[in-house]
Amino acid sequence: MKQSQMFIPTLKETPADAESASHQFLLRGGYIRQNAAGIYSYLPLGYKIIKKIETIIREEMDRTGAQELLMPAMQPAELWHESGRWDVYGPELMRLKDRHGREFAMGATGEELITSLVRDTLNTYKKLPTTLYQIQTKYRDEKRPRFGLLRGREFIMKDAYSFHAETDTLDDVYWAMYHAYQRVFERCGLKFRAVLADSGAIGGKDTHEFQALAAIGEDTIAYSDGSDYAANLEMAEVIDVPKEKPVGQPLKKIAGNSGTESLAVHWFKTREATLAVFLRAEDEVNDVKVKNYLGADMIEALTDEKLDAVHPLAGVRVLADNALKAIADGVFYNKAEETTYAELDPSRDLPIEAFADFRFIKEGDPSPDGKGTIRFAKGIEIGQIFKLGTKYSEAMGAYFLDDAGKSKPLIMGCYGIGISRTLSAVCEQYHDQNGLIWPKDLAPFTVHLITMNMKNEAQKQLSAELYQSLLEKGYDVLWDDRKERPGVKFADSELIGSPVQLVVGKKADEGIIEISRRSDSERKECAVHNLLEQVNALLQTSH
Amino acid sequence: MKQSQMFIPTLKETPADAESASHQFLLRGGYIRQNAAGIYSYLPLGYKIIKKIETIIREEMDRTGAQELLMPAMQPAELWHESGRWDVYGPELMRLKDRHGREFAMGATGEELITSLVRDTLNTYKKLPTTLYQIQTKYRDEKRPRFGLLRGREFIMKDAYSFHAETDTLDDVYWAMYHAYQRVFERCGLKFRAVLADSGAIGGKDTHEFQALAAIGEDTIAYSDGSDYAANLEMAEVIDVPKEKPVGQPLKKIAGNSGTESLAVHWFKTREATLAVFLRAEDEVNDVKVKNYLGADMIEALTDEKLDAVHPLAGVRVLADNALKAIADGVFYNKAEETTYAELDPSRDLPIEAFADFRFIKEGDPSPDGKGTIRFAKGIEIGQIFKLGTKYSEAMGAYFLDDAGKSKPLIMGCYGIGISRTLSAVCEQYHDQNGLIWPKDLAPFTVHLITMNMKNEAQKQLSAELYQSLLEKGYDVLWDDRKERPGVKFADSELIGSPVQLVVGKKADEGIIEISRRSDSERKECAVHNLLEQVNALLQTSH
Repeated sequence: MKQSQMFIPTLKETPADAESASHQFLLRGGYIRQNAAGIYSYLPLGYKIIKKIETIIREEMDRTGAQELLMPAMQPAELWHESGRWDVYGPELMRLKDRHGREFAMGATGEELITSLVRDTLNTYKKLPTTLYQIQTKYRDEKRPRFGLLRGREFIMKDAYSFHAETDTLDDVYWAMYHAYQRVFERCGLKFRAVLADSGAIGGKDTHEFQALAAIGEDTIAYSDGSDYAANLEMAEVIDVPKEKPVGQPLKKIAGNSGTESLAVHWFKTREATLAVFLRAEDEVNDVKVKNYLGADMIEALTDEKLDAVHPLAGVRVLADNALKAIADGVFYNKAEETTYAELDPSRDLPIEAFADFRFIKEGDPSPDGKGTIRFAKGIEIGQIFKLGTKYSEAMGAYFLDDAGKSKPLIMGCYGIGISRTLSAVCEQYHDQNGLIWPKDLAPFTVHLITMNMKNEAQKQLSAELYQSLLEKGYDVLWDDRKERPGVKFADSELIGSPVQLVVGKKADEGIIEISRRSDSERKECAVHNLLEQVNALLQTSH
Repeated sequence: MKQSQMFIPTLKETPADAESASHQFLLRGGYIRQNAAGIYSYLPLGYKIIKKIETIIREEMDRTGAQELLMPAMQPAELWHESGRWDVYGPELMRLKDRHGREFAMGATGEELITSLVRDTLNTYKKLPTTLYQIQTKYRDEKRPRFGLLRGREFIMKDAYSFHAETDTLDDVYWAMYHAYQRVFERCGLKFRAVLADSGAIGGKDTHEFQALAAIGEDTIAYSDGSDYAANLEMAEVIDVPKEKPVGQPLKKIAGNSGTESLAVHWFKTREATLAVFLRAEDEVNDVKVKNYLGADMIEALTDEKLDAVHPLAGVRVLADNALKAIADGVFYNKAEETTYAELDPSRDLPIEAFADFRFIKEGDPSPDGKGTIRFAKGIEIGQIFKLGTKYSEAMGAYFLDDAGKSKPLIMGCYGIGISRTLSAVCEQYHDQNGLIWPKDLAPFTVHLITMNMKNEAQKQLSAELYQSLLEKGYDVLWDDRKERPGVKFADSELIGSPVQLVVGKKADEGIIEISRRSDSERKECAVHNLLEQVNALLQTSH
């Protein structure tokens, strides 16, 4: 494509509200334009990349046997009433009324619609399992849209749904999706981790998030430096290496607060009980673990004011973190009694119902899989796979007849990839201070051919020949044939970030041009008869 | 693809509200499902075809040099206020408010958004002309959604917009689009006509509609049986072959109504004047022609009650259809005077300001291009191209600097294709009483391999071999490997409508199967070693 004819409105200045590198460079490079808060147009350069990501996703989805369809974005409110989510979804669900006053949701997700679609059709075990997916525009009315495409209000998602007669095939499809997602993100050139995540209130057992590593990520990932292990911070299991417990001294009570306590108590309330959870003072209590241990659907941390009312421990369920098993000389300040307990052996001195893992993992802890040490990283969630179970099929009456003729709810899985987010995550990982540096499988153009001076006949002539010959050889080449100053051309070229740059300049009449890789920008001279060889060599060593 | 694993929920019965063939068979064949009035899901079979149409459109758009982008469906109301359309668009424009109470339109069309996108960027003649297009979901809150995808409320469109410094390049792009549209619809196998249409109030000069011929079409097309000429009924010019005017008699006045009048008058009002338009009694007045002749932005036909007030012709502009030039013996009943005028020569006896073409064309009239005779047909509008001019650029401040440094509004063209409508139009043209008959370039599967009895080992074995070998040769083949009765399989096969059917039945152990073309259903035996040859022969003669 000739750059003089292409719509690439680059910007010299960084827009004021663009906080992240991806947001800045996608705007400055003429990839996207904002139309309203959290609402963007993908300009020709940006949409070329979106389509490449979509092609990768389609190929990998089709390989799993999933079938593509397209459901509408406008979803009748009745379906959301059936699932119960119309009232609980809150203001993030965009809603509208048609001319007859009927209510619709602009789809933030597709569980309701797909369940309504299959409930009359996937009605026998013979048609199961079936996996359906779509690539579609989704809507979420974020309170604070930010980081450009990362937290937008209209965005592109791949969402897939699988339907099963038994959990075995759900497991199979779940892991097939897991591996398909790995291939998708690898092909996009992303550094990412598949992390164990919390399944929340929906109650499925397994769920993994795919997190692209990036400093601006809103999620913290705990990963092993010696294995593939990774989990969301709140899900990472803490393994206490068994230690010999020292022989303790008798419990000592000292009036007042010594200020040296090594144990702390955290108070919680569920619908059924009040809880005291003892941890080492240096550890942070992980309420997700407490909640999951109890199998509770909600949990509330109690503040200091409420604590006085529930002291002492009588009538309270007492839990302790595993670390306390090995402690024989704890120091604990009992606020209600204004007394410090020293030489405290939790197993001996506290009415502990159970020891379990109730704390957040820390950097330096051993990896739960026994291999390596835990490190932390920030991640951008680009995908999630989820065993939904029968939540929607039961609520919405999606039943099938099993091989014994018995009616059962469909077992479901759901699997999402944020396509606009994936684009942003790639930008976060691949840029320098001057612009983007595209991985070669996503680059909108593989080769950027830059003519220093279009008024110079030798340069113009040689450029035209190279352009034609690269096109004929199948390279996706952008030719900067504009009558602009070299400085403008180089700045735009760095913003656009094609893997390989070719500069036709003063030595054009000798058949010599300059070639460089965007990732290191080291320019060297190249005779045009060697050009393809050198382009290929640079492409092979580009990421 | 194995049919046992594919989501094709065919229906035995025709759904009650499905009026047209396309609607019936798309539903019955498992191509689409309705989610709400005028809102549909494209199931895997249907979406395969949509993607094929989209690929054809992308190829033809790219050939014209147009660049693809993707704009959001949610459009800020401010832009529609700028263009003035927020208030005039009416209830067909879907609207919603975000959590902060800001208003948005769900895009029915993209002029406002694209104009806002280019007004800061296409700001110099150097960047013109530029053509941008998108394939996107559109919204229109139809009062009476009907005919399935034909008149839906959420639908897929290709919309393109071109921007120009001068009208010459607008003409070039307009005709490039015209030819691209012809290729798109030819490749889709459609019988269609590009017809001259009325540009309405927008004021552009040229506009063509692309009409797929179909009995259920809502538009009437006048076309020539001897040339490519075609126009919307109201736009077709009437050519009066010059006739010698007979020598007339003196005007006669007869009291009362003789009931034999050969001339009629039609009354209209514009903002400026009252009009009497004389036609032959057998002709129908075409108010679009009257309006366009006057260059008026509105015209109102006056009913009989109002007529009495404006009689006689004093103070009224009097126009006459060209046919009246050759009349010397007209008979006209003047209602106000309750008098019949006979031997009336319009040129002599009426205060006619001008003769022009004011009537509807009729079947049998000569074609305006002088070649052939006019016939009528019904059409489904599947595309339209339009010279917009500067309506939006002036209203929204989209100006550029010309080569003399002068600021001018961008000249615009817009070009649409209804993709979901195109799918429906193909179905209207390609079906029989049992189902669809896909043109081979759109067929979701080229070959349908049907195993009569999957419990028969020879049939199953041979089918598996044929399936594998067809796949390896690159055929898109659907294998009906279901354990269903042959009757069910044949009925589904006709609904699905692949160009070629292969039936593996009783002679499987002899290596003989049956082959047929969906369009004529004539089955003949075929030895499997000749299979590819015969499949190719049938495909070549399929449409």
